[in-house]
Amino acid sequence: MLNVADRVTSRGAVPVGRIKDLAVNCQKSRMKRSFGARTAAYPLPVFLIGTYDARNRPDAMAAAWGGICSSDPPSIAVSIRPTRQTYKNILEKKAFTVSIPSVDQMAEADFFGVASGADTDKFEKTGLTPVKAEFVDAPFVGECPVVIECRLIRMVELGAHTQFVGEILDVKIDESVLDADGKPVLAKIRPFGFDALMSEYYGTGPVVGKAFSAGRKFKD
Amino acid sequence: MLNVADRVTSRGAVPVGRIKDLAVNCQKSRMKRSFGARTAAYPLPVFLIGTYDARNRPDAMAAAWGGICSSDPPSIAVSIRPTRQTYKNILEKKAFTVSIPSVDQMAEADFFGVASGADTDKFEKTGLTPVKAEFVDAPFVGECPVVIECRLIRMVELGAHTQFVGEILDVKIDESVLDADGKPVLAKIRPFGFDALMSEYYGTGPVVGKAFSAGRKFKD
Repeated sequence: MLNVADRVTSRGAVPVGRIKDLAVNCQKSRMKRSFGARTAAYPLPVFLIGTYDARNRPDAMAAAWGGICSSDPPSIAVSIRPTRQTYKNILEKKAFTVSIPSVDQMAEADFFGVASGADTDKFEKTGLTPVKAEFVDAPFVGECPVVIECRLIRMVELGAHTQFVGEILDVKIDESVLDADGKPVLAKIRPFGFDALMSEYYGTGPVVGKAFSAGRKFKD
Repeated sequence: MLNVADRVTSRGAVPVGRIKDLAVNCQKSRMKRSFGARTAAYPLPVFLIGTYDARNRPDAMAAAWGGICSSDPPSIAVSIRPTRQTYKNILEKKAFTVSIPSVDQMAEADFFGVASGADTDKFEKTGLTPVKAEFVDAPFVGECPVVIECRLIRMVELGAHTQFVGEILDVKIDESVLDADGKPVLAKIRPFGFDALMSEYYGTGPVVGKAFSAGRKFKD
């Protein structure tokens, strides 16, 4: 629990009129419980990282540590332990894909996270289909509604994990999840997230607001 | 659109029995539309990055490019353009927080993404409360249900964005979103995601499966 005495803001001198604010701060902070140094955030993704090994056998693993990391070049980062087959494969091919599973592939995606490509043909076990990517030497998961083709451009050692930064060369989306104007519909993609503290997967809900617009009311 | 001729897998020689699989591959791939080199993935977060400037004035910005990047040390990465006030502030203090807004703070979070801390006191404009973090010299957003305190441990230049890697020193969660056993309940946290292709925010849905368990059925 937090010490109430620490809960003042750091705006410098405190005008009398802000005493009420500080009291509110104290109250708010006392309502938070410390969980320690944990890897938790919301939402966290479930990415399926597709690779070929040196003999061109397809593999994929589930990874929740990752996300978009730059707009130019458009890039995505995924963190992988050196013990994983995927680690070796990316080094071999300098390429990977990120397939975004829908809830229809939830159990398969989970299996891709617990089994090892070193001794298991995960595609064969699950029945999912490895499809050779168009621009890079890596397979994506054919059944996944959204797939991202990446060329390795950077490796960053971050302790237990190595972060692989991939330049996004293409994003491919199933025709079946597009609307009449060709725009991807989230409710049809049905991606899911990973709750690291509860070890659960959860679906996506409805649209709640328009980005770069919902906050305009605070401008004046 | 993809060229059907490219759609064979790379498992090497193709046994006759796999011709059907390849036909399925072709069909699946033809159903995907290319969107080009875009920064899209699902889900993407809406992180509020809290910092103090050199005069200890609190600021926060919304960032969707980021995620957990290592388990040990527990770390989170957020990508920020050098033009942002947050960039300067992190360099100054070597610290930042990541506050996870609930849908209750959706409009405020959006404003934190479009306004600049260089000329706007975003906390004052929105009425949200900057609370000094316990372990680092940065403020978090008091109203957010989950907050993460980070010490800067690495900067990685990735083109338009610089990735700041923060070691997670603590995760704090509102008592009001915990269950009777003290576990965080996603349906009470109510975080939301960012749909980069549609420029929309969307809520989270119900739990759809147990991680490290749902895929066991494929083991044998």
